[in-house]
Amino acid sequence: MESVKVMDSESVPLTDGLNRVLAGDVVACMDLPPFSHATVDGFAVLHEDVEQASRERGVPLRVVGTICAGSVARKTVRRGLAVRIMTGAPLPPGADAVVKEEDTSPRKKTTPLIHVEKPVAAMENVASTGEDVRRGEVVLEKGTALRPENIGILASLGLQQVVVFRQPEIALLSTGDELVGLREDLGGGRIFASSFYVLLAKIRESDCIPMALGIVGDDGASIEKRIRSGLAANAIITIGGTRRGDSDWVRDVYGKMEIHSQIDGVAMSPGGSFAFGLLKGKPIFSLPGSPTASVVAFEELVRPSLLKMRGISGGQSLARPTVKMSLGGRTRGKRGLRKYVLARIVVKDGRFTAIPINRARRGAVTPMVQANGIVVLPEGESEVHAGEEVLVRLVDLNL
Amino acid sequence: MESVKVMDSESVPLTDGLNRVLAGDVVACMDLPPFSHATVDGFAVLHEDVEQASRERGVPLRVVGTICAGSVARKTVRRGLAVRIMTGAPLPPGADAVVKEEDTSPRKKTTPLIHVEKPVAAMENVASTGEDVRRGEVVLEKGTALRPENIGILASLGLQQVVVFRQPEIALLSTGDELVGLREDLGGGRIFASSFYVLLAKIRESDCIPMALGIVGDDGASIEKRIRSGLAANAIITIGGTRRGDSDWVRDVYGKMEIHSQIDGVAMSPGGSFAFGLLKGKPIFSLPGSPTASVVAFEELVRPSLLKMRGISGGQSLARPTVKMSLGGRTRGKRGLRKYVLARIVVKDGRFTAIPINRARRGAVTPMVQANGIVVLPEGESEVHAGEEVLVRLVDLNL
Repeated sequence: MESVKVMDSESVPLTDGLNRVLAGDVVACMDLPPFSHATVDGFAVLHEDVEQASRERGVPLRVVGTICAGSVARKTVRRGLAVRIMTGAPLPPGADAVVKEEDTSPRKKTTPLIHVEKPVAAMENVASTGEDVRRGEVVLEKGTALRPENIGILASLGLQQVVVFRQPEIALLSTGDELVGLREDLGGGRIFASSFYVLLAKIRESDCIPMALGIVGDDGASIEKRIRSGLAANAIITIGGTRRGDSDWVRDVYGKMEIHSQIDGVAMSPGGSFAFGLLKGKPIFSLPGSPTASVVAFEELVRPSLLKMRGISGGQSLARPTVKMSLGGRTRGKRGLRKYVLARIVVKDGRFTAIPINRARRGAVTPMVQANGIVVLPEGESEVHAGEEVLVRLVDLNL
Repeated sequence: MESVKVMDSESVPLTDGLNRVLAGDVVACMDLPPFSHATVDGFAVLHEDVEQASRERGVPLRVVGTICAGSVARKTVRRGLAVRIMTGAPLPPGADAVVKEEDTSPRKKTTPLIHVEKPVAAMENVASTGEDVRRGEVVLEKGTALRPENIGILASLGLQQVVVFRQPEIALLSTGDELVGLREDLGGGRIFASSFYVLLAKIRESDCIPMALGIVGDDGASIEKRIRSGLAANAIITIGGTRRGDSDWVRDVYGKMEIHSQIDGVAMSPGGSFAFGLLKGKPIFSLPGSPTASVVAFEELVRPSLLKMRGISGGQSLARPTVKMSLGGRTRGKRGLRKYVLARIVVKDGRFTAIPINRARRGAVTPMVQANGIVVLPEGESEVHAGEEVLVRLVDLNL
């Protein structure tokens, strides 16, 4: 995380800002609401005038005008006077409260005289200038991702443009002599490179821009060349070749390319053969090739860095939301390794349960399809039984 | 929900399929894995040959070849023979198991004779043809939204194109004499139409395509004209004018345009003035204008319909995930109305807590910015205290 740099900033139209991350605090350039206004349809009055009002003894007031939403108050409200006012219309000068229409009689709209039948407190049914946001206040902090509601408050302030961090471009390369891309022929002994397409989509889902470098065989020179072409991006992800077998290239290529290795193996399972290095300051994340391992290593070790590059900080966590829930099956930890178990999270009677998918054999693609969460088991071989509580990352909430 | 139609389908490249929804079941066109292969680096053998193998008494086997990943097995394994095999390489004919490299000696790669030091069971360290997916099996059902992992399994099957429902185009119109768009001047008595921009982003976040019809004053004829221009979209959302006040147009315009009204008011708060109708079969959703009410009514009454239009079905819920959690404050229900309280969901020690944001005054924009969830209180005036359990919709998991 420390080696990964936050992107530069750029200005984009607010309407293109969804999920982009603020590159600076946004300070309110005006009060919200910008002027005191009625929050109901009724009559702007002086509250002292109607202190004694009751259903039996209405207080008579002379109506001297009407203010609609969007117009400006011209008439001043003095003792004995009232101005008909609509929701959202500015409180006229002199008035300090609004009586609801239903607390007056008669209900005719044109009458020049009304009777107020209920008292109001000062500023009742009025939203006053700056009660929601004060000019000069920080409304959203640097590092906040723009949800629709956040876009709303910036729109309230009239911001047409917003300064956000650039979206990182992430190069993706898959390696393996047995792998082919979707446009190639399968041929004998070969399989389609599913993890490449999973990761391409995960990069996009992380609100980064994928740069597809494609699929190459387990040949150091070709991999080197392809990695160099990825230097145009802000970071590089490779898939495959991370173990210490005959055809596994990561350590050779890292050595030859003078990639400054920072991580070579992580005490976790699956995904433990993950490697990370820097080439000319650019982060290179090397994921294991197995579908389950690549997904787990991406979620645990890459995605938080991509979110950091996007500029997310402040209160927001860089990990998926992680909560305790009941295990709906049994599973087992591993000695000396943090174990990650793909799980299907279901909601029943308002409670989450995580059903572990233990059948995550190397190469199998169905477990990751069934899973929408990852159980995190602490180091140790102990068995966890159905009904016990475990910590689970919520990967996908569309349960 | 019943009046809302699912979109037609179209074919898109799989790599553009993220978050699109399958318009038909996907049936596996091949077995996965497509051929039996080694899941470790080692030696393909006949398991009967090595039944008696031990560290002390290694079973000698003659190595007659090597199979790398991506190549095709040519040599047949007979009794007394072995073939060196790499992870992912197809199991050669004759062999029925793979011995891990570390269970053999010597470890030299070129030796023509090895000693197996540990027995293996039949098919041990082998992933067999079709063990993950059988040809003809339904791998993903119609109505499934394509998560990255789902794209992965379709890629495993070599699918270049995928048939999905079209994305609905949703027209959005905001009304109110007091409202201006971001490119307009504020002027006296006017405010920026924040809800318009919130909803524009919410439509996009629901994976629909927004069609911005802009902001018009509370004038029936202009609103009518604008709604007609929205008929080019698949559904129309209007904001504002839903109450029964002087300047509220919904009932007038619905009547004049012969919009077949299906809902006129909902027993909920906020958002209770919501209206819904059909114009030439096109759904029109009319949301109240207040920021909080428009967000709550959208989440509860519109978003599920948009998801239905997108084609989402099957196991997936059309509502936001809804779970029970502790209330971190106090709030109160309403007699005869289902009450929705914006809340900030926080995670502490792996437990969700929902802090109610009760200060949601008409017009205020900060409550929706703080909230990432909505507490759903059943009808009734009872007070709910801190620590009591409530049902909460998880609107945004980036907590």
